[in-house]
Order: sequence, then structure tokens, then C-alpha cells
Amino acid sequence: MRTVTFGCANSLDNYIARTDHSVDWLLWGPEVARLTAGYWKTVDTVVMGRKTYEAAVRSGMPAYPGVKNYVFSRTLKPWSDCPVKIVAEDAAAFVARLKAEPGRGICVLGGGEIGQALLAAGAVDEVAVNIHPVLLGGGISLFHSLPHQIDLELIETERLENGCVYLRYRVKR
Amino acid sequence: MRTVTFGCANSLDNYIARTDHSVDWLLWGPEVARLTAGYWKTVDTVVMGRKTYEAAVRSGMPAYPGVKNYVFSRTLKPWSDCPVKIVAEDAAAFVARLKAEPGRGICVLGGGEIGQALLAAGAVDEVAVNIHPVLLGGGISLFHSLPHQIDLELIETERLENGCVYLRYRVKR
Repeated sequence: MRTVTFGCANSLDNYIARTDHSVDWLLWGPEVARLTAGYWKTVDTVVMGRKTYEAAVRSGMPAYPGVKNYVFSRTLKPWSDCPVKIVAEDAAAFVARLKAEPGRGICVLGGGEIGQALLAAGAVDEVAVNIHPVLLGGGISLFHSLPHQIDLELIETERLENGCVYLRYRVKR
Repeated sequence: MRTVTFGCANSLDNYIARTDHSVDWLLWGPEVARLTAGYWKTVDTVVMGRKTYEAAVRSGMPAYPGVKNYVFSRTLKPWSDCPVKIVAEDAAAFVARLKAEPGRGICVLGGGEIGQALLAAGAVDEVAVNIHPVLLGGGISLFHSLPHQIDLELIETERLENGCVYLRYRVKR
């Protein structure tokens, strides 16, 4: 089965972007580049919700390159030469089917609503965060409410030179 | 000036307790005992809001031993042999005055509302969290909204055997 990962860079107070979706506070550098490049080698598919997709388009990224892009939406309609696949069906059922197909890992992108649904449905295998040394004080949350507790096993930690802390967890079943 | 610290054990999704205030999910062990004991040696004062105080009383802790206990509340009235000092004035102004007095560190306890006020007022010097390997999915938040971003400097990290990650930050001015 393919590994489904949810998470991304976040602030210590659990935000992935400001309220206006800006991420000017993100810290880059060679360590982040290395972690990101290493992770992207393990995936061949990204899934995201409509809001994340629209934010990506606004930032000039109509699709993530080199991977299959799926966008969950019941309102968007595919258009000619659409660079992503619009999926109107239930995210958890769709991802469960994807997981059973051959392929590399599946990355759940974005601001938590699809992540919330997939976590709640037990479809997420790993959670990874790169905690930035900042309290944003408001914005778009990474983790949303869940119908039940999810226990995690810490499998990787790295303190970066830029003050970030990268944490990777396996979801306990 | 004395150091004011805010933070405590939290879940990866920014909760310090379940909605019913229970903390049955907290992990203990010799490393947590060592960190806690080391920290308590640096403080002689704790400040907290009414809700945190009432939760402590319910759990059988009418006052933290060996330190001065201040509870911010505009509704509680002191009673005879009250083991804590009730403070009706503005938390930030009170803590600013405490900081200027001689003494050891000041610990801001609890579920974030006093922490929020003190962070917003620039009265907090350090933020420390012991991130537990769990998504609680709901409960009482550690970090609340803030009127402005607060930049932090990572000054200590420790990966504990029990899967927790202890992070300590200095608030940048």
C-alpha cells in the first residue's frame, strides 16, 4: 500500500498561512531544500481541496510538476487542457482506492479540510510538520477538529539551522 | 528582570487538555520529571487565569507548592486562608510590575487566555512546549489568536524517549 502523508510547514500556533493565504513568513534554506527534495522523491501524487488549489493557482502554480494532481471539489468543472484532475467523489473513498493502486507515496496538501477528512477516515499514514519559530496569531489552520483522538509515533526529528524543527510521525492504528 | 515563561505540554494540534479539561493523554517518565524539576527550580511565582485555577482545584491542587500563586479574576473574592492571591487588575500591568521586582522566574500557567494577553502585551520572554505525539482533535487550545505576529528564537530542543519533543524559544523583541 502507498503511504499517504499529511502536513507541511506550520507555525508553532498551528497555522500554515496567514488569513490572506500569504506565506511570506516561511523560512527557506539548504536544509529545507534537502528535506523537500527528499520527500518529493517519495511521492508521485498530490491531493488537495479546492481552496488550496485556488491558492496555488493564484501563486502561479496551476499544477505541481512531475506528479499527478487531484483536486477535490463538487463545484469545479474540468476545462479543456485542465492540468489537474477534478474529483467530485468523497475524498476518503477516492484516496483509499488510490492507495490500493501501484505507485509511490501520496501527499495531502493544504489547509487541513481534506487532511481533516482523511485523518478522520483513517486514510493518513504519516503526519509531517516543519514547525517554524513564530506565532502567527491567526490564519489558516493545519490541524482542524477531529471526531476522535489519533495517536502518533514519532519517527524522525531534525532541528534545522534556521530555527525550524522538522517532525515526522507514523499514525498508529 | 525576571523571565516570564508561557507554555506547557501540548498535543501536535495545539491543545493542552480535552474539552472536559482532562489530561489523561499526557505522557510522563523520567525525562519529563527531569525537565519539569529543572524548570521549577528556575521559578518562584506562577500566574494563571480563573479557569486554570478552578481546573487545578478540581484536580486536587489548591495551590502550586513552594511558589507564589497569583490568579487573575475580576469575579473571585479572596476568602480566609485562601492559598492563592486573587488579582483583579490587568494581567499585563501586574506581570510587568512583578518582573521588575527581585525574584526568580515567573511561570504563566494554563489554557492560553492569560498567555494570550501577556504575549500580546509583550510580557512573555520565553515560550516552551512539550509536544506530545497525538492529535487530540479538540479541546482547550494553548495558543489563541494574537493581534500581531510574534517571532521566536529556538534555544533548546530535546527528543524524549516517550515520543515527545520539548522545544524552548526566546521571544524576539
